[in-house]
Amino acid sequence: MVPRIVDLRSDTVTKPSEAMRAAMASAEVDDDVLGRDPSCFRLETEMAKILGKEGALFVPSGTMANLISVLVHCDIRGSEVILGDNSHIHIYENGGIATLGGVHPTTVRNNEDGTMDIHLIEAAIRDPKGELVYPTTRLICLENTHGNSGGRCLSVEYTDRVGEVAKKHGLKLHIDGARIFNASVALGVPVDRLVQAADSVSVCLSKGLGAPVGSVIVGSNNFITKARRLRKTLGGGMRQVGILCAAALVALQENVGKLQSDHNKAKLLADGLNEIKGLRVDISSVETNIIYVEVEEGSRATAAKLCKDLEDYGILLMPMGSSRLRIVFHHQISASDVQYALSCFQQAVNGVRNENGN
Amino acid sequence: MVPRIVDLRSDTVTKPSEAMRAAMASAEVDDDVLGRDPSCFRLETEMAKILGKEGALFVPSGTMANLISVLVHCDIRGSEVILGDNSHIHIYENGGIATLGGVHPTTVRNNEDGTMDIHLIEAAIRDPKGELVYPTTRLICLENTHGNSGGRCLSVEYTDRVGEVAKKHGLKLHIDGARIFNASVALGVPVDRLVQAADSVSVCLSKGLGAPVGSVIVGSNNFITKARRLRKTLGGGMRQVGILCAAALVALQENVGKLQSDHNKAKLLADGLNEIKGLRVDISSVETNIIYVEVEEGSRATAAKLCKDLEDYGILLMPMGSSRLRIVFHHQISASDVQYALSCFQQAVNGVRNENGN
Amino acid sequence: MVPRIVDLRSDTVTKPSEAMRAAMASAEVDDDVLGRDPSCFRLETEMAKILGKEGALFVPSGTMANLISVLVHCDIRGSEVILGDNSHIHIYENGGIATLGGVHPTTVRNNEDGTMDIHLIEAAIRDPKGELVYPTTRLICLENTHGNSGGRCLSVEYTDRVGEVAKKHGLKLHIDGARIFNASVALGVPVDRLVQAADSVSVCLSKGLGAPVGSVIVGSNNFITKARRLRKTLGGGMRQVGILCAAALVALQENVGKLQSDHNKAKLLADGLNEIKGLRVDISSVETNIIYVEVEEGSRATAAKLCKDLEDYGILLMPMGSSRLRIVFHHQISASDVQYALSCFQQAVNGVRNENGN
Amino acid sequence: MVPRIVDLRSDTVTKPSEAMRAAMASAEVDDDVLGRDPSCFRLETEMAKILGKEGALFVPSGTMANLISVLVHCDIRGSEVILGDNSHIHIYENGGIATLGGVHPTTVRNNEDGTMDIHLIEAAIRDPKGELVYPTTRLICLENTHGNSGGRCLSVEYTDRVGEVAKKHGLKLHIDGARIFNASVALGVPVDRLVQAADSVSVCLSKGLGAPVGSVIVGSNNFITKARRLRKTLGGGMRQVGILCAAALVALQENVGKLQSDHNKAKLLADGLNEIKGLRVDISSVETNIIYVEVEEGSRATAAKLCKDLEDYGILLMPMGSSRLRIVFHHQISASDVQYALSCFQQAVNGVRNENGN
Repeated sequence: MVPRIVDLRSDTVTKPSEAMRAAMASAEVDDDVLGRDPSCFRLETEMAKILGKEGALFVPSGTMANLISVLVHCDIRGSEVILGDNSHIHIYENGGIATLGGVHPTTVRNNEDGTMDIHLIEAAIRDPKGELVYPTTRLICLENTHGNSGGRCLSVEYTDRVGEVAKKHGLKLHIDGARIFNASVALGVPVDRLVQAADSVSVCLSKGLGAPVGSVIVGSNNFITKARRLRKTLGGGMRQVGILCAAALVALQENVGKLQSDHNKAKLLADGLNEIKGLRVDISSVETNIIYVEVEEGSRATAAKLCKDLEDYGILLMPMGSSRLRIVFHHQISASDVQYALSCFQQAVNGVRNENGN
Repeated sequence: MVPRIVDLRSDTVTKPSEAMRAAMASAEVDDDVLGRDPSCFRLETEMAKILGKEGALFVPSGTMANLISVLVHCDIRGSEVILGDNSHIHIYENGGIATLGGVHPTTVRNNEDGTMDIHLIEAAIRDPKGELVYPTTRLICLENTHGNSGGRCLSVEYTDRVGEVAKKHGLKLHIDGARIFNASVALGVPVDRLVQAADSVSVCLSKGLGAPVGSVIVGSNNFITKARRLRKTLGGGMRQVGILCAAALVALQENVGKLQSDHNKAKLLADGLNEIKGLRVDISSVETNIIYVEVEEGSRATAAKLCKDLEDYGILLMPMGSSRLRIVFHHQISASDVQYALSCFQQAVNGVRNENGN
Repeated sequence: MVPRIVDLRSDTVTKPSEAMRAAMASAEVDDDVLGRDPSCFRLETEMAKILGKEGALFVPSGTMANLISVLVHCDIRGSEVILGDNSHIHIYENGGIATLGGVHPTTVRNNEDGTMDIHLIEAAIRDPKGELVYPTTRLICLENTHGNSGGRCLSVEYTDRVGEVAKKHGLKLHIDGARIFNASVALGVPVDRLVQAADSVSVCLSKGLGAPVGSVIVGSNNFITKARRLRKTLGGGMRQVGILCAAALVALQENVGKLQSDHNKAKLLADGLNEIKGLRVDISSVETNIIYVEVEEGSRATAAKLCKDLEDYGILLMPMGSSRLRIVFHHQISASDVQYALSCFQQAVNGVRNENGN
Repeated sequence: MVPRIVDLRSDTVTKPSEAMRAAMASAEVDDDVLGRDPSCFRLETEMAKILGKEGALFVPSGTMANLISVLVHCDIRGSEVILGDNSHIHIYENGGIATLGGVHPTTVRNNEDGTMDIHLIEAAIRDPKGELVYPTTRLICLENTHGNSGGRCLSVEYTDRVGEVAKKHGLKLHIDGARIFNASVALGVPVDRLVQAADSVSVCLSKGLGAPVGSVIVGSNNFITKARRLRKTLGGGMRQVGILCAAALVALQENVGKLQSDHNKAKLLADGLNEIKGLRVDISSVETNIIYVEVEEGSRATAAKLCKDLEDYGILLMPMGSSRLRIVFHHQISASDVQYALSCFQQAVNGVRNENGN
């Protein structure tokens, strides 16, 4: 029997709130492929305004948001994109930019804080004189917050400097901003200012914001026109999509304000876990809603085993490799869930030790 | 002032019914990318059963349904697909199978009834002996009902024979069954029997069935496993997608039974239009819910002009080329709408004549 | 024992002449990838001048010449090319433009004379208003002479008119001119005039011209710069390639003047074959160096069987389908070879009849 | 006036020897696309035997050799290749594997000796359990000798161990062996033993071996069959290609034996350059025919300036970045050229100093 479920696998697992369900039930809709669904139009207008860009486009997922963005900026055969070797686009999106778009990726090492050294970015830009044997660099991608670095934030200064490098070399800058609102809140920088240097940004509505489905891409009107067409090619054009957009509009209202609380709870749990013998959390890296927990070698528990044991307590997590767990907060994790999770961790880690160690 | 709107542009324009809205408001959902959304699971299970295939996959659109199907069957570089020169995949899907998938299309002429001559299909299959200079034929695509032929139905006998040709040459058969339920109803053949020869079928939920968003692909379990992964690559994986699937489950219950009535109304309007001087409808071609109206040369009205004039009456249509209009029926067009549309057509055609002809 | 070989399989089978061999043995060469091989430079300069274009590029094959040309004109993702359904690019080049380049082909029916009806070409150009669901038409391809139509010539008037259609719609025109010198000679039109309307032309050096290896692409300097880079991507950049170019320069001098004689011999053989009972040649279609021979049904010989029997006499041919043979002339077929071939045909056809018919 | 040319830009710059020219002038040839050119057949047979693989294929360039190899091993959509971040395929081949083939590259850091740490290779292989979001790893690429590391050799032990990793995970191993004969000679290991673990090897004939044009791929018969077809798709099929193959056969006989002497001269020059104040050569890295010369910061000369000055003496080199020169030896550099080059370097470096420093 599972007494209680605390789902910390991802911030994508939230269930729609009552207000979202009500909004979906009464959403004004039309065929968004033939013309313009009014609820979708409202969401796109709102998102463009919030992010400070000319236009916006609703898409079914963050993967499509990034795929479209990279492919639109790299629409000429023989393009190369510079991106982090530990970035979501490079690792978790099936290599779609190459597989489907023929875009050649060249990676720069991601530092622990999710940045790439700016001189390394600049060194990776291809010299146009070598164009006989080089692909043409057309795009730099950043990720903010940076998921694989534990949700750490890229500062506005860093982002601006990368933007200057891009501009200097005639390149575009795309920000994978799946969790850009988390970064904005954590940094105390308005989100439009934070992405000011970017030519395009993808923003996820179904992570911390808690909408059931969807991401939005923002950029110039010209970019959005091309993105709309490519969305159709990929099969991401949807009919009465206002249903989903209505929920997303509620999400924007309800949940942006809750992100700070998610971060606070994450820090609380991180502190608690770090005190458990056998676990280790780099507290300074917990800047937003993600915690990476190292299962220490001496503990004789593997990440996978611990995950499985915690599942018996109703605590759902993701193992990342053999000695690492990922925990992600969202608005449906309460303060009491944090306390419950902490006590389950204590029991599971000790249980593991007893089982193996006596 | 528009006194009344009769939207005949497409069967994709329907608004969700109250029951669908209620189902969405209360749908049981989960993260369908991480695991299995229960409502999505129910829909996929139901659709697989109805279509008589092992598995099913929900996708955001018919374009993605076809794109995934073609790319999964043609997953080896150097594949060729045989499809109709007047088919939806070839004409209206941005050439995505080549653009994104590198699949080489070779077309066979579509007859007026949407079929391709079987000996021409067979002649288009590449001789494996010429493989040094030929791509490898791996797939045949049919479309049932065939949209550009006015929604005409491919018979089960025809489909079976194409299936035999495919099998004989070691090819796969995909059916673009966006409106396969219309075909099933019009032919009086159970839909699973109608697609029995196919290795995969795409079915649209947001056309005649009236769901707000989505299509489903059905096929073998192995096919669906590959399709699921490619859906992720394309960015078609969605989180709490059960919202949309709950509506689609209602659509299946509510609207399959109404398709015959759609067809009847279409025939009624077709008969009426054909009696208007200056318009011509090939009555025998109106087998399901689509009417193509020819604006005769003598009438001195263009299709575009007539569309625009009818828009003033609230009758929405699509011009197809300079002398052709497309009308598509769906469950939200009433018998009274048919009468109203007919009288508007009479006035508009006459109006046009007066304007130009006196 | 084979008393004598008459190789009529293709005009690609010629052996280099003594002068070509001497030229290769003494060719001035350099690394053409690092800089400019002088013999290659000479050939490219000469070809650009002859074809009346700004620049030229030597490539290893006609397939690469066409592939590069199409891909350079269609360098933006989502491009479509209009080409003949019976054209070499569409049928015999592995679908490379789609497979490797993601270019979507749309075909127009080739008439028996190798032309496509101009109104059909124009109708195939996509309406930019439909761009949400359409690929973007960027290129029209012609083939002159048209191989699958028996080497028939496109007139300069026809070519110019297609060029005007292209210009009117902002498209490029590429001519697959593998045998453009045959067309020029047969039509009595200078080759630069014949391709004046084209933005690019591929010309084969190893067909009628008799060079051992290679084709040349001609076009604007901007086109050639892009083509050079794509040639490198494809792996067509070669080092001391002047060896091959030196032979090609000899070929230009030696063999253009012999093409008329090839055509005359082809007509001679065609006339003779047409008089053999059981064979049929459409004499009017033999405009250049290719003959298609129909093996009549009553003859009870298949094309494949006849080919095989003629091989015993040293006559090498290619069967094309079940009832058709292809014969191609080149400068190494003498007048006496024609007589010999004719007598072998007579014996083989009669032999076949005896074998089957008595 | 240039008194003497010493071309050290690359080992691709050699001119064909008299014996090669004679061989080309008398080569027995045929149409290699239609059947089998006898000289090409001889070369392919010989190369397969030398490299210890079932079959071989002649291609126009090393770039095509690698492109075909990667694409054949990764012929299913969604494939990923693991290769060095400083490898020729990743840096100098226009990103063709992604651009044309849609293969997703993931890089592992190349150590200074051209190896990649084996545990890093293994860590880069995708876990099949993550296949929903991961491309499928299908291939590992090594480069021996490793050009950007100064022509250093991968040992047979290292190669075998990478081969075991590949086998263990069901992957293929390709070796970019453009200069594999240099490695074989330097290591004293027979070339077939050195590549024993590889599923395919590309070998350049126009680098150290001195043939005018071409590379060869070797592998299993099944691999070669697929490679032959892809070569046609790319446009690398050539007609009377025996001309080039005849020269390559001479190259194999004449020049493999000279590679040790190339290496000796390289070491001699490296020693001499390292003694010039302002230049620095890591002597231990000069294992074969390549020298990287660092122009020290204090020297106030840039690599580009030094290259230009040396060009006035007839010494041709390539600058690699702002402070590095590349020198490559081949059989047409004599011992006397080494002495001459050394004295020119001394004058140029001093000249530069005088010019800037007094």
